[in-house]
Amino acid sequence: MRATTTCIPCYLKQALSAALEVTDAPETQRRVLNEVAKLLPGLPLENTPAENSTYVLWRAQEVLNCHDPFAAKKHHYNELALSMYPDLKALVQGSATPLQTAVKVAAAGNIIDLGIMDKGDVDLNAILDEVLTQGLAVDETELLEEKLGTASQVLYLVDNAGEIVFDRVLIEELQTRGLTVVVAVKGAAILNDATMEDALAVGMDRMCRVLSNGSSMIGTDLKTCSSEFLQEFRSADLITSKGQANFETLNETSAPIFFVLKAKCPEVGRELGGAMGDVVAMFNRTTGE
Amino acid sequence: MRATTTCIPCYLKQALSAALEVTDAPETQRRVLNEVAKLLPGLPLENTPAENSTYVLWRAQEVLNCHDPFAAKKHHYNELALSMYPDLKALVQGSATPLQTAVKVAAAGNIIDLGIMDKGDVDLNAILDEVLTQGLAVDETELLEEKLGTASQVLYLVDNAGEIVFDRVLIEELQTRGLTVVVAVKGAAILNDATMEDALAVGMDRMCRVLSNGSSMIGTDLKTCSSEFLQEFRSADLITSKGQANFETLNETSAPIFFVLKAKCPEVGRELGGAMGDVVAMFNRTTGE
Repeated sequence: MRATTTCIPCYLKQALSAALEVTDAPETQRRVLNEVAKLLPGLPLENTPAENSTYVLWRAQEVLNCHDPFAAKKHHYNELALSMYPDLKALVQGSATPLQTAVKVAAAGNIIDLGIMDKGDVDLNAILDEVLTQGLAVDETELLEEKLGTASQVLYLVDNAGEIVFDRVLIEELQTRGLTVVVAVKGAAILNDATMEDALAVGMDRMCRVLSNGSSMIGTDLKTCSSEFLQEFRSADLITSKGQANFETLNETSAPIFFVLKAKCPEVGRELGGAMGDVVAMFNRTTGE
Repeated sequence: MRATTTCIPCYLKQALSAALEVTDAPETQRRVLNEVAKLLPGLPLENTPAENSTYVLWRAQEVLNCHDPFAAKKHHYNELALSMYPDLKALVQGSATPLQTAVKVAAAGNIIDLGIMDKGDVDLNAILDEVLTQGLAVDETELLEEKLGTASQVLYLVDNAGEIVFDRVLIEELQTRGLTVVVAVKGAAILNDATMEDALAVGMDRMCRVLSNGSSMIGTDLKTCSSEFLQEFRSADLITSKGQANFETLNETSAPIFFVLKAKCPEVGRELGGAMGDVVAMFNRTTGE
């Protein structure tokens, strides 16, 4: 999807978030904002929102002289999510519809990323309840079930640190069905996106092959991904894509993608055919025809 | 209070809001954002947030060639709020503690301004319930009651169009107690702030004296107000101040002000001694000593 004018103020907010992670000094925060403000008029709305965000964060990181502003937060999220893992696993194992429950757990992981983890007193049950009882705005798990019947290789595009523990539950459910799952992480630190380091931290390498996508950009910007990743992307029978940025960068491809995300802004809600706040698990609508 | 770095992305958001009210053309919206982006590095954090917002909106209005981007919305809000008036009035009249209920109704007006009115299907009862049953984070209505016992002249600084109908209920409650109330509106259109036109539209002139503050800036920027208003401001026994911008611009004065507002951002929450989202009815903490 393409960026819109409503994305522009968010870019400044993201730059500020990065600055706030690194420094308490208002002068430095202001320098970041001033430099990013200069960058804004040159960002094309023809880019995906994720691509423009990446350029903004790179500039912020330059000014901050810090290549990974969210490092501490990512570590914290991973630890916190790992402490939740036994409960998440038990939920799926105790479910009459384990695939759907695992999809919902993965979706809950994307909700939790929205800062709820920041609050310290994470009410995991409340978040899971929201997804498990209220359900998803779009839920194509049945179609997923059907497609998995003829699939053997699944590429799983993860989103953030912390959230990847929630993904692990779904990945294990896919493996239970005899599928080979390859997990793709970012090639370098950007925002709180999961990298190889995060995958190792939550033990994902011990359960499946973990592959860097070779790109340091937010989402999955195919033109910047490694040929190794692209080969995996093209040969997978099915791709599971977590989070908004992966959706932003891939929803115009015709790949067989199952998107799981919460729409964090009105534009993505609209692009999903719904509204901001929607939590969905749905297949790619672009067929390439 | 002074602006902080967290205000900067909001300035861009406010400029976008103004643009979205006036035009659907992304090119024009983008031109507004680009011009405001150029302005941002020059905005001093020593200013109040409201003052910086004013400069941003003026620039947006210049680019849009429109001096009142929110005119249609203001009209809509006034009409909608007027249709609620009988219910609001009945609430206070049926209350065992009418002053407190009237204060809560005025506070609810400030909540409703947060865009809930946009939704079309305004659930007035839900909003009032929130304030009436959950109460206020800080509620100094008892102290207000006490101070009113020795007061005769109250200056009432209103906030937004629509919301002023909710204020009317509190103003009438003050009048019931024999107090003379003077209502101050903005000297010119800025954001969705109430002007003389809005006061006339909801019949406020038929119940009390309505005075322009002589300023076209957000909040109550005393250095830009008329001498007529300043005289009223200095001679009032008590000042009621609605909304965040009036708080931002007046909380460092030592005037006897009763602030009623919902904190729409973390910075104002902190300045109130609480958190974002707090709805408060509290006296000025600055004593001037």
